[in-house]
Amino acid sequence: MFILPRAAGLFALLAAFAAPASAQPAPSETARSPQGPLLIERQGSFFVGGRTLRSDTLSTQPAYAPSGTITVDQIYVRYQVPAGTGGKRPLVLVHGCCLTGKTWETTPDGRMGWDEAFLRQGYPTYVIDQAWRGRSAAHPTTINAVRTGQAAADTLPTVFAAGQEDAWAIFRFGRRHPEVFPGLLFPLEAQEEFWKQMVPDWNFAVPTPNPTVVGLSALAKRLEGAVLVSHSQSGIYPFQTATMSREGVAGIVSIEPGACPAADSDMEPYKGLPILVLWGDFVEESTRWSPRLRACRDFARAANAAGGKVEVAVLPEMGIRGNSHMLMHDRNSLEIADWLGGWIGRNVGERR
Amino acid sequence: MFILPRAAGLFALLAAFAAPASAQPAPSETARSPQGPLLIERQGSFFVGGRTLRSDTLSTQPAYAPSGTITVDQIYVRYQVPAGTGGKRPLVLVHGCCLTGKTWETTPDGRMGWDEAFLRQGYPTYVIDQAWRGRSAAHPTTINAVRTGQAAADTLPTVFAAGQEDAWAIFRFGRRHPEVFPGLLFPLEAQEEFWKQMVPDWNFAVPTPNPTVVGLSALAKRLEGAVLVSHSQSGIYPFQTATMSREGVAGIVSIEPGACPAADSDMEPYKGLPILVLWGDFVEESTRWSPRLRACRDFARAANAAGGKVEVAVLPEMGIRGNSHMLMHDRNSLEIADWLGGWIGRNVGERR
Repeated sequence: MFILPRAAGLFALLAAFAAPASAQPAPSETARSPQGPLLIERQGSFFVGGRTLRSDTLSTQPAYAPSGTITVDQIYVRYQVPAGTGGKRPLVLVHGCCLTGKTWETTPDGRMGWDEAFLRQGYPTYVIDQAWRGRSAAHPTTINAVRTGQAAADTLPTVFAAGQEDAWAIFRFGRRHPEVFPGLLFPLEAQEEFWKQMVPDWNFAVPTPNPTVVGLSALAKRLEGAVLVSHSQSGIYPFQTATMSREGVAGIVSIEPGACPAADSDMEPYKGLPILVLWGDFVEESTRWSPRLRACRDFARAANAAGGKVEVAVLPEMGIRGNSHMLMHDRNSLEIADWLGGWIGRNVGERR
Repeated sequence: MFILPRAAGLFALLAAFAAPASAQPAPSETARSPQGPLLIERQGSFFVGGRTLRSDTLSTQPAYAPSGTITVDQIYVRYQVPAGTGGKRPLVLVHGCCLTGKTWETTPDGRMGWDEAFLRQGYPTYVIDQAWRGRSAAHPTTINAVRTGQAAADTLPTVFAAGQEDAWAIFRFGRRHPEVFPGLLFPLEAQEEFWKQMVPDWNFAVPTPNPTVVGLSALAKRLEGAVLVSHSQSGIYPFQTATMSREGVAGIVSIEPGACPAADSDMEPYKGLPILVLWGDFVEESTRWSPRLRACRDFARAANAAGGKVEVAVLPEMGIRGNSHMLMHDRNSLEIADWLGGWIGRNVGERR
């Protein structure tokens, strides 16, 4: 925690020199950058993984050939490395169901996202789009095969969109749409902007092993030691990554996972690995989520009995109430990011 | 051009304080940030546009309800505003066919993308994903309608993937795959990373008017004066945006457009608007592109005769040879970005 005050000093120094920014802040930008300019050492994007295949149903349009080679299953990664990051471990941020890496950016009500919050704590951040979603290419050739009568309708890929009424309960805004849990901290006044984040989900159509997990393992190795931060649908992925190979996996933060590893599964991959499983409020009010929390507690007991370092943190038990399933968007999202950054610093530690 | 040297001085000052960055640079990061740390005034992401609809074929999975409300046609926008930007106009970067906003980020061979190059020139940059692509949600409900036998196969949305062999000639790497134009500046050694950028293209399936154009108009108004920078498939969009409304459209840079406005169309929307149409090399060798360049020259003559300020720039005619259709990835991409930034400064000017 030595870099931050020093950095803050530099920002103040810079502010004295810096000319005012030109663009009028738009509504969703007005609440941003409460700590002055960001100093970025380097940023950019790249892909990990990917599979090349040939298809004869790439297109039904005369302007584009039906036959050819495409690459699918790759994972899009956008990263920023802050200046003065010292030895802080890179954080890989993995979104959940029906969403993309946008999850971690500006909140629906226009506040700083966790991608920037962690940067300002000195952590390099790597935000991915899951396989077949967002900027990670989906695999459309079956659609054209069916469209041209070369395949049966039931061979179409399984793709779904979560309806807003359905998602309301899944994200725990209330027991059912349009009920609202008392004291809910999700900014419902900005729900329209939030619903725009949701995209069709091809997760039931991707091959096995899940290319997102394969990509996470490649990324962790490439970063030579990263903390994998997952959410909801992707909650289990860091555990599956560690099972594939411990190389590069420095720690796991699983936020409201759709599943934890089974308590009777092999605990060897998790031995000595700092793992945090974080939960928000109202879990006991949800038939979808309460069994999952119980299963994560069972996993933690089994893992720790076998030499694991698993902590299950439930915010209400820490006196923090009102959080939905979308913790990173709730009104106290920056406080939670601070707490998480502290947990990672204490438990994962820095590079030697 | 006064801010930059001063900023450079600050960066040097900072470099003296800054601790070394932690993460080992990965292959595609090694060539980055030749000019020291970036100073960002603010950054984030938001959506423009969007249409809410109800569907009964959202899902075929028991875990997700088939009926509900979703939002589609919105446009994902990611922005960065550099510190000390003075009065520079925001640039809106719009990618082309079968691609996403990734086009403008790190080049396939790991060099700085135009998003950062323009930032370092002092321009706020706004990178979008076209409607139904990348982080802008596609509309999947017809797929489930067909899959469940509620609709005929020929009602499936028109989606296509450009095959790599097909794209080879479209992007003018050579006359046909795997031929290479002599002196080509596209980094073919990194083509594998480039092919991973390509995603399924739903452009023939989006409603009319194109939601990307609707979104660009909303974004331009919100930014109170932006330069719309388009490429290839999206080349015509800024012209269509100006036809919809001139409000917020401060200038147009159309890079190798799939089409310019017809020379016999209404030129009123372009009167007095600074417009650049930029072309690379080998255009005359391409039966796909050479007629399009000729049509853009016809448009420029017609527009300028009607009080327009349209310039058609063909790089080889300026002595710059070897550029492909993917100018922003070619080995001289940063030189071209410098020239473009200069053109915008001279022709569009700054905010008063």
